[in-house]
Amino acid sequence: MIDLEKTQKLILEATPVLGRESVPILETMGRALFEDILVVEDLPASDISALDGYALPHTSLSGVSDQTPAHLRIIGESPAGKPCGAFVKDGQAVRIMTGGLMPRGADTVIKLEDTAEDNGYVICKIDPGWGNGIRFQGESLKKGEIVLHSGDIIRPLEVGALATMRRAYVQVYRKPLVAILSTGDELSDFHEPSSPSTAMCSNLYSLAAQVVEANAIPLCLGIVKDDLQAQHALLEEALRADVIVTSGGTSKGKYDLIHKAFASLGMEMRFSNIFAKPGKPTTFGIIRNKLIFGLPGNPSATMLSFEQFIKPALFKMMGHPNGPGKSHMLNVNDPFSRIDSFNYKQGGNKDHCRASQVPLGRPLPGPPQHQKPEPETRPARLKIVAR
Amino acid sequence: MIDLEKTQKLILEATPVLGRESVPILETMGRALFEDILVVEDLPASDISALDGYALPHTSLSGVSDQTPAHLRIIGESPAGKPCGAFVKDGQAVRIMTGGLMPRGADTVIKLEDTAEDNGYVICKIDPGWGNGIRFQGESLKKGEIVLHSGDIIRPLEVGALATMRRAYVQVYRKPLVAILSTGDELSDFHEPSSPSTAMCSNLYSLAAQVVEANAIPLCLGIVKDDLQAQHALLEEALRADVIVTSGGTSKGKYDLIHKAFASLGMEMRFSNIFAKPGKPTTFGIIRNKLIFGLPGNPSATMLSFEQFIKPALFKMMGHPNGPGKSHMLNVNDPFSRIDSFNYKQGGNKDHCRASQVPLGRPLPGPPQHQKPEPETRPARLKIVAR
Repeated sequence: MIDLEKTQKLILEATPVLGRESVPILETMGRALFEDILVVEDLPASDISALDGYALPHTSLSGVSDQTPAHLRIIGESPAGKPCGAFVKDGQAVRIMTGGLMPRGADTVIKLEDTAEDNGYVICKIDPGWGNGIRFQGESLKKGEIVLHSGDIIRPLEVGALATMRRAYVQVYRKPLVAILSTGDELSDFHEPSSPSTAMCSNLYSLAAQVVEANAIPLCLGIVKDDLQAQHALLEEALRADVIVTSGGTSKGKYDLIHKAFASLGMEMRFSNIFAKPGKPTTFGIIRNKLIFGLPGNPSATMLSFEQFIKPALFKMMGHPNGPGKSHMLNVNDPFSRIDSFNYKQGGNKDHCRASQVPLGRPLPGPPQHQKPEPETRPARLKIVAR
Repeated sequence: MIDLEKTQKLILEATPVLGRESVPILETMGRALFEDILVVEDLPASDISALDGYALPHTSLSGVSDQTPAHLRIIGESPAGKPCGAFVKDGQAVRIMTGGLMPRGADTVIKLEDTAEDNGYVICKIDPGWGNGIRFQGESLKKGEIVLHSGDIIRPLEVGALATMRRAYVQVYRKPLVAILSTGDELSDFHEPSSPSTAMCSNLYSLAAQVVEANAIPLCLGIVKDDLQAQHALLEEALRADVIVTSGGTSKGKYDLIHKAFASLGMEMRFSNIFAKPGKPTTFGIIRNKLIFGLPGNPSATMLSFEQFIKPALFKMMGHPNGPGKSHMLNVNDPFSRIDSFNYKQGGNKDHCRASQVPLGRPLPGPPQHQKPEPETRPARLKIVAR
């Protein structure tokens, strides 16, 4: 008889962290990164406009006022994605859109609303200051920085960041293959006849669902009779998986043979009787470096034992450093804490930038930045309904 | 300009609940049942033993004590799944295992630990009372009862219950198909060259990931240029989906054409300017009964708008009565509140029953039953780490 806490320690000590696989980013949801993701080029890659307006040399605006407006000749246009080839000299301006590349010679953007256009000229009555309206090269992310770390859990925000880094595929920890089998002469599967003395092998399906929910891969091997040879043979087949989970056959009865079957394959038993209820007869051991869990056959006990003993092991295998449900997933990887921090950092004034010119933020070491309460006349601040 | 609350009302009013599809139970995780699930036969289907011990007619034990034990002749064996054909008369007993069918003539089970066996006889010194150790037919679930309700969200416990009802396939609400496209001449995809004036179309991928995370199906249509005809044509193609989500092109600039493209397909505009930040230019309308969302191009705003406006609509479409993150998912469907209630109801003394002879519990109307705190000498009670 062994304490619950001790059992969990024994399991995690024996649990390996699995290797990598390369996966399309849309198939990585909930998985842990195996690699650090580096910024491959500055973001933005060049100086671009953060506004719709006019790009100009700041010198053109010296001394402007309502009384002495500047009249600048419009010599071209720089929409996003179509750079303007012109060099902007003193007295000239280029019409520019959010995300448009700054033309050579220009160092300031004046926003559309602060200007008027007249017959090929733009009239400026105010000076927004040198460098206004520009997102400078590398302002958001610098080449060589780490934007996501090995071990980070991938959610939509991380998918966006990976795409921004032009990563169509990414290395994540591979998912464990979990073999599932259920013992009992009374069990029948969907395709088998049922009678008053048979019972549906529902544990096979609830366990497989738990494996799926934990983001691992079930290998459903079905029912095995209360027969030592049959159990030995099916366990031998199951050993191609990373983890074997059996349900039933853990009692002391004449037909409870699974412990003998485990022993016949040379299992190093780590524990076989837990000071817990339900789940007392849960068994754990190692055969050829694979984790073997013998769960009791009672459906409630089976499901609870899975959650208690197997799920943390699966999460460790998949590179989740703190197991399921720990701070790593709930805080650091909450995309909206990052988005908030991003908006905070940017002062909130660039949220109409063109698609993808804005980075998706970076992991925060701590909780999201505190936001001052806003008076009711401000627009509603979008926030996320907790899931 | 319209309030956030009003926008959500407008969206949900316009959102249809989708129809059914029949799906293998292991592929239904997180989805809502479309049908009530009836109990197809009593559970247990017959009177079975809840113990390892001996089945006997209670009359055989009348007057037993340490001084006057009963000696009953063992006339057969009833392991789980292999009924014993014998009729048990007064003075006789049948060896029975947990889950074994009660033999005719027997009405009581005395547990193994309370007996001794001697040369074909079992010696009983105590009377456990009439009916002891039996799980009576229909004790857990009665034929015709509803075990799961339409709208219930399927998790591993529900998968187990469906398997117990011998349902390999089940009708669930179908997943919406969500077309995603991104507008902008500056955008490039993985396979396209990048330059200082291009930007990766990361919103396509973060939106697709959000759709996947919401358990719906993304239809990734890619980038469309700032060209009205091209946008019209791609939107026409996108209309085979249930929902269309666009990102970018919602500003007032010369190349922000998506509103014109929506209009060219006859969109009934429901709103186009929200008193919220970020997300202000989010647009919502209807084209041929399909929901159309025009999101701003800024990645943070795009993701937040998806969570705020689109996700609740997707959940309504998929038959989640209270949307994501509401009590339905967190309480009523928490499998472990049900498991606890089950253990509570059963008094905890049958958790070594054979696999699948025990039902998986039923939805509770309220929160889990209160459990009395136990003194430290009791075994640990398994509980679930919150996810």
